[in-house]
Amino acid sequence: MCAAVGQALPTCAQEEKSRMSKAGVNLRIPGPVPLPAEALELAGSQMINHRGSEYAEMISRMTMNLKTVFGTAGDVYFVTASGTGAMETAIVNTLSPGDRVLSLVIGVFGKRFAEIAEAYGAEVTRLEFPLGEAADPAAVSKALAGLPGCKAVLFTHNESSTGTTNPLEEIASAVHRSSDALVLIDAVSSAGGVPISVDAWGIDAVATASQKSWVSPPGIAMVSFSDRAWRAYETARMPRYYFDVGQYRDYLEIGQPPFTPCLPAMYTLDRTLKMMIEEGVEEVFARHEMVAENTRRGARALGLEILPEERYASATVTAVRVPEGVDGKELVSRVRSDHGVVLGGGQQELTGKIFRIGHMGWVDESDVEDALRAVGETLEALGA
Amino acid sequence: MCAAVGQALPTCAQEEKSRMSKAGVNLRIPGPVPLPAEALELAGSQMINHRGSEYAEMISRMTMNLKTVFGTAGDVYFVTASGTGAMETAIVNTLSPGDRVLSLVIGVFGKRFAEIAEAYGAEVTRLEFPLGEAADPAAVSKALAGLPGCKAVLFTHNESSTGTTNPLEEIASAVHRSSDALVLIDAVSSAGGVPISVDAWGIDAVATASQKSWVSPPGIAMVSFSDRAWRAYETARMPRYYFDVGQYRDYLEIGQPPFTPCLPAMYTLDRTLKMMIEEGVEEVFARHEMVAENTRRGARALGLEILPEERYASATVTAVRVPEGVDGKELVSRVRSDHGVVLGGGQQELTGKIFRIGHMGWVDESDVEDALRAVGETLEALGA
Repeated sequence: MCAAVGQALPTCAQEEKSRMSKAGVNLRIPGPVPLPAEALELAGSQMINHRGSEYAEMISRMTMNLKTVFGTAGDVYFVTASGTGAMETAIVNTLSPGDRVLSLVIGVFGKRFAEIAEAYGAEVTRLEFPLGEAADPAAVSKALAGLPGCKAVLFTHNESSTGTTNPLEEIASAVHRSSDALVLIDAVSSAGGVPISVDAWGIDAVATASQKSWVSPPGIAMVSFSDRAWRAYETARMPRYYFDVGQYRDYLEIGQPPFTPCLPAMYTLDRTLKMMIEEGVEEVFARHEMVAENTRRGARALGLEILPEERYASATVTAVRVPEGVDGKELVSRVRSDHGVVLGGGQQELTGKIFRIGHMGWVDESDVEDALRAVGETLEALGA
Repeated sequence: MCAAVGQALPTCAQEEKSRMSKAGVNLRIPGPVPLPAEALELAGSQMINHRGSEYAEMISRMTMNLKTVFGTAGDVYFVTASGTGAMETAIVNTLSPGDRVLSLVIGVFGKRFAEIAEAYGAEVTRLEFPLGEAADPAAVSKALAGLPGCKAVLFTHNESSTGTTNPLEEIASAVHRSSDALVLIDAVSSAGGVPISVDAWGIDAVATASQKSWVSPPGIAMVSFSDRAWRAYETARMPRYYFDVGQYRDYLEIGQPPFTPCLPAMYTLDRTLKMMIEEGVEEVFARHEMVAENTRRGARALGLEILPEERYASATVTAVRVPEGVDGKELVSRVRSDHGVVLGGGQQELTGKIFRIGHMGWVDESDVEDALRAVGETLEALGA
């Protein structure tokens, strides 16, 4: 796997492209992302002793590199789970049943974050915004004024269900100005592709997952944990065992995981984290932004409308409105059957109304051009 | 990967043996197990849409095959987690805080099961047995007589920390005769290698994990869930979200996982489950038992003593006492450095006192012979 340098993937990457598809399919869902050949080779490496020195060296290196990407001197942990497990980890280690929590909801994953907190007995107040809009920092400040003693604000950084990215820095700043609440974010579909400065912006826990911008197979969730989060941990009474960060902290001191880790995703992540550092973290973010801009431009050239307004449009997944009179489910289905391009459909209230093009990870122009061409030809075939 | 037929691995398997090691290492810990080339190739397969038809077909096939191996007409689920996640799943979906629970402890993993239940607020009574001994069904009946209203009995089927297998059928029978308690078992290191008849023996939840006898990489935990367990689920109030079996049940109806699954382990498990059915489940168990017997015989031939008594000795991992005057940690370390054989050491109270040879999964005589030869030569070098 050669590192993607600068704004576009280099030639050797282009050569690998043909190996990134399975049976000629262009997987353009918002994760799992298709993997280049060397990432797959790493995922298929032989097992090692997760209590031995080889693993200790690997997890130490990965921890250091993940801190660099996150911009934190605080703690980060690798947990064998999907992104939802990371979200649960952020909640159960910082809160107690009955704690007042503000949850910003701009789509499916914001709802999920609120539901996890409620499942563990938090008293959740939802601040909802229309689908396709971002959360408004001023509204967050106002809501916090009405929630004295609020322990945490939960929100999705990048709502992949609507292709909308919340203004993370501004929201975090509003929270810190208005309250002592912790800032817990679901960055499952943003981290690694969209800037997050954990320490500079005061993010207390970031939850993300290997199969998104990290160019690895699903199986590993990643969580950052700030000093303030550790202070909250001391008194947090939500029950936890598998997701107890205290166990991850104690075992990391001896270079081990508390529980057998998903080695295929760890092997791959080890390499892709190194690649991100080599390419330059800012360059990785710029590359995602450039691909996203081109995707929106290409969709508009087909006469299509992007769901969120430009400034909140996601750098990792683009949500496009299905034109009037077209059945969105049929569109996605025919794009797959006729062109081998797998798009994301709309979820819940947006079912049939939007389609989504994933462009996180190791993606370049040709991937999205191919997807947009397929959409254009299918719309034509459907008479739109 | 060619199926292992009858009592020993066939010739084509022998040819693959050389590819099962990493840098000439013979990984003989009790999981992760070393994987044959084709299993690794499957783990390194390209990503697919986990909400598409290909995944739906795969999970339907895997569910059916896992039920066959478990001997159940009840439910089984695949969860992205390590085995400890499966243990937590069994507990949080059937119990409520304050519930009276009996926990049988014969080693490290029995303690862990009790700790998970306590972390979620169960009132746990521990029935402990000396390390290297199995739980006594009569003692279980007696303990239950003193615990009216006991909601569940938790125990490890195969305690890999002591190489001891509890008499599962007898204990389950004792529980059912003495109480209405659920039988929840940690079969992480036994299932797939040691007989478990879920329906016939009345096991309400079995927890296991992909990296053990299932010849797959770590990343997927598996849980069975009986009708009685579902009835308990209706009133169980322990908080849960990621491990909520209700979500797994509802999504399975549409051929999907609730959360992004660890695809590398799913791909491999799909194949190895089929192989187990083709080889014959009874034959797989017989093969494990045969390898284990030969391991014990070989260890005794070196003048060594097996920790548990013969009838409770594990078919998946053999715990051997370190001879008087030998430093067990040095023994394990030198076996690794001088012979490339990775043994398990003793854990907690047994540190330095035993070593463990894993022989679950796709293992044959030569693997354990090689390990025993290394132990013999190292003991000689250490002057024992």
